[in-house]
Amino acid sequence: MEKRILSLLVDNKPGVLSRISGLFSGRGFNIESLCVAETKNPGVSRITLVTEGDDMILEQIQKQLNKLINVIKVIDYKDKPSIYREMLLIKVTAKPNFRAEILRIVDIFRCKAVDVGPEHYTIEVTGDEGKINAILNLLRPMGIKEIARTGTIALARESA
Amino acid sequence: MEKRILSLLVDNKPGVLSRISGLFSGRGFNIESLCVAETKNPGVSRITLVTEGDDMILEQIQKQLNKLINVIKVIDYKDKPSIYREMLLIKVTAKPNFRAEILRIVDIFRCKAVDVGPEHYTIEVTGDEGKINAILNLLRPMGIKEIARTGTIALARESA
Repeated sequence: MEKRILSLLVDNKPGVLSRISGLFSGRGFNIESLCVAETKNPGVSRITLVTEGDDMILEQIQKQLNKLINVIKVIDYKDKPSIYREMLLIKVTAKPNFRAEILRIVDIFRCKAVDVGPEHYTIEVTGDEGKINAILNLLRPMGIKEIARTGTIALARESA
Repeated sequence: MEKRILSLLVDNKPGVLSRISGLFSGRGFNIESLCVAETKNPGVSRITLVTEGDDMILEQIQKQLNKLINVIKVIDYKDKPSIYREMLLIKVTAKPNFRAEILRIVDIFRCKAVDVGPEHYTIEVTGDEGKINAILNLLRPMGIKEIARTGTIALARESA
């Protein structure tokens, strides 16, 4: 099963997120990641979610989503050339003998160090899921204290 | 009323997000933005949410959250020195006479152009809410075609 990314334009109202996420869990679909935030129109929010599961059931869910009164539009990024990005904040243990190596990784991955202490660095990374997982794997041996991850957002590329 | 940022460590299971967001909407609290994604432990997800509302009711919600069996920990970032970041993908109309100005803005804000066409740029920005809103306001006159925004994630600073 492959990952599927859906983007929903919805009314920015209490209860909408709960109802939508309930539609997925009611069918046994786990939502791997989800972001919701305002669009350029403050009355409309965009929910981007990543899920995995049976294609036929996902199609049924999409039909049900389209019927919900607070759902304005459902965009399925399958087979649509798109830009995918997520952001990671990672607080990594930075003992003296590892500090230079961590900053080399930060440099190669074009990340930013956003907080520093005698025993840690906090690093901001953006990229697709592959890049985020790659840097996580590289930093894991140093000791990861804490991470916060946004989940994926997406925009379709425009045919040039 | 000021914005409040909560971070929840929860079991990565279907239904958890729906129940938690339902707790907020049931009390009339709108969730302004929310991110959920895996932590370094795949069985645990971190939900970061931004809301606004009466302090007393929010305290009640926090108590209820703490009682939920799938909620491992609730972190309130109020009065806690922390790093806040969100990410924005913005597709902006880029007519020939605006292209140089848009790239100057990209440069000043340390953003990245991630897609380009004859009539548009797609730009990736990270920063706190203030920075994200500032660039949105600067680019609005050029014509914003579409945006996708992650919502805020947070990590506490470590006392050095």
